[in-house]
Amino acid sequence: MQQKLNDFINENKSMIQEEMKTHMHNLDIPVRLKKSMLYSIEAGGKRLRPILLLAGFKAYGTNIKKVLSTAIALEMIHTYSLVHDDLPAMDDDDLRRGQPTNHKVFDDATAILAGDALLTYSFELITNDPYLSDTQKVYIIKLLTEASGPKGMVAGQILDMEAEKKEINLQELETIHTLKTGELLRFAIRSGAYIGEATNAQVEYLDEFAYYLGLIFQVQDDILDVTGDPDKIGKPVGSDEVNQKNTYPKLLGLDGAIEKKQYYVKMAKRALENANAETSYLMLLTDYFSNRDY
Amino acid sequence: MQQKLNDFINENKSMIQEEMKTHMHNLDIPVRLKKSMLYSIEAGGKRLRPILLLAGFKAYGTNIKKVLSTAIALEMIHTYSLVHDDLPAMDDDDLRRGQPTNHKVFDDATAILAGDALLTYSFELITNDPYLSDTQKVYIIKLLTEASGPKGMVAGQILDMEAEKKEINLQELETIHTLKTGELLRFAIRSGAYIGEATNAQVEYLDEFAYYLGLIFQVQDDILDVTGDPDKIGKPVGSDEVNQKNTYPKLLGLDGAIEKKQYYVKMAKRALENANAETSYLMLLTDYFSNRDY
Repeated sequence: MQQKLNDFINENKSMIQEEMKTHMHNLDIPVRLKKSMLYSIEAGGKRLRPILLLAGFKAYGTNIKKVLSTAIALEMIHTYSLVHDDLPAMDDDDLRRGQPTNHKVFDDATAILAGDALLTYSFELITNDPYLSDTQKVYIIKLLTEASGPKGMVAGQILDMEAEKKEINLQELETIHTLKTGELLRFAIRSGAYIGEATNAQVEYLDEFAYYLGLIFQVQDDILDVTGDPDKIGKPVGSDEVNQKNTYPKLLGLDGAIEKKQYYVKMAKRALENANAETSYLMLLTDYFSNRDY
Repeated sequence: MQQKLNDFINENKSMIQEEMKTHMHNLDIPVRLKKSMLYSIEAGGKRLRPILLLAGFKAYGTNIKKVLSTAIALEMIHTYSLVHDDLPAMDDDDLRRGQPTNHKVFDDATAILAGDALLTYSFELITNDPYLSDTQKVYIIKLLTEASGPKGMVAGQILDMEAEKKEINLQELETIHTLKTGELLRFAIRSGAYIGEATNAQVEYLDEFAYYLGLIFQVQDDILDVTGDPDKIGKPVGSDEVNQKNTYPKLLGLDGAIEKKQYYVKMAKRALENANAETSYLMLLTDYFSNRDY
């Protein structure tokens, strides 16, 4: 089963990356802007969001071409959020995945504009998709704006900034994560299933699944900052404690955090079973999210 | 005729502003994010873009409700671009229209996020419009992403930044303006006419009109920086010369710039006549753009 998942991830990762590059290379735009957008797109990453989208689709649909533009649009929005997050005015990070951040290679102004361009272009991509109906395009753009805009990811970023200066409780911590990270993961699964023509009831159960998957992702992130291998995760461990970040281990202790994660895994799998998607890659991805070491 | 235009502008300006505020106040998002978005939305401005959109629509259509969301989305995108443009990493402006810029009132991080949120929310608004068909929504979002993204406004901003350090010729200057300012004006007129169900041929002529209108707007901007009244334009005159900006008066002399503007006015009006929109507010707006003193 592990091999099956690895093959699925590796094949789709390559496909997503090729598709993104092709789209970008075909764009007739100023050289510096293109270089800056491409730099962050090619900087790698696990491509978890488009892979989740493909897995959500595969649980019900077959023709993978139907989800490619949406998957790429999603990854571009994730990429834009990282480019803006790394800016000196935000997290002020010089490195991401071991490479200099966008504004370090270009400059702050170019990084701001490249982020704006990636965000805007992601919606353009969906409007031009030849495999989706207009009704599907409108619904997907609506879901994506809700997930990434002021009600979703951007709300999470503002709340996260505000929480840095104070103590928060577990419920507040989960709200921040659900908005900042969870909403895009939720979009991935929801839009994949929708394009795969899952029933409304199935989409609702997958929505519940996605909620828990987002939390699993975050608890594991926090756990890795305590117990992870710095070489594998690509950054020093213990930085959350130094930065006095609100994390699961801080609020619950390390054992409490692991216990919480196991509870979320149980809830996620139960929702999957209800969604009649239990034979899909989503089940394998749940354990992958829970056990990842980077 | 002047009174007719003034009434049109004032009535629609108020309506647009009320609509924008209502939409924003109804948004259930973090307080700080909402305050920052509202601050820049309420900061005023001429609302030229939504007014042009309404005028483009009025040349063919009647039920104004059909264009309200699109007009507001357009103004929100214009607003986001100003918020990001004013950032220290970009133009580093402390004042806009005599008031402190967004990042001065809040902070750089909040201004970046408020801009991102305005951009994303503008597309969400269009997906939720109850008066447009899905086909219309997809086409409008496509036009708006093209006008504001890496092929349009953002391309213009990058090229403008690069041109600051060198001498450019008239053609290069016009390319920058067409992308940076013209594309959104073009979207205003084109989408208004499209929703008003103008024929394809009429839309093409209006497109030509919009191209010249954008240039008229820019030449007059440059002229006002030489001959304008600082109290009216809200900033000191002569700043373009001090900043060694590439402008029409610099490349053509003041008389040459005025002559060029008159040529553009002639071309704009000819296109309008071809579009069978000669009785519309667009004709009046052409003179208004050409003769404005602020």
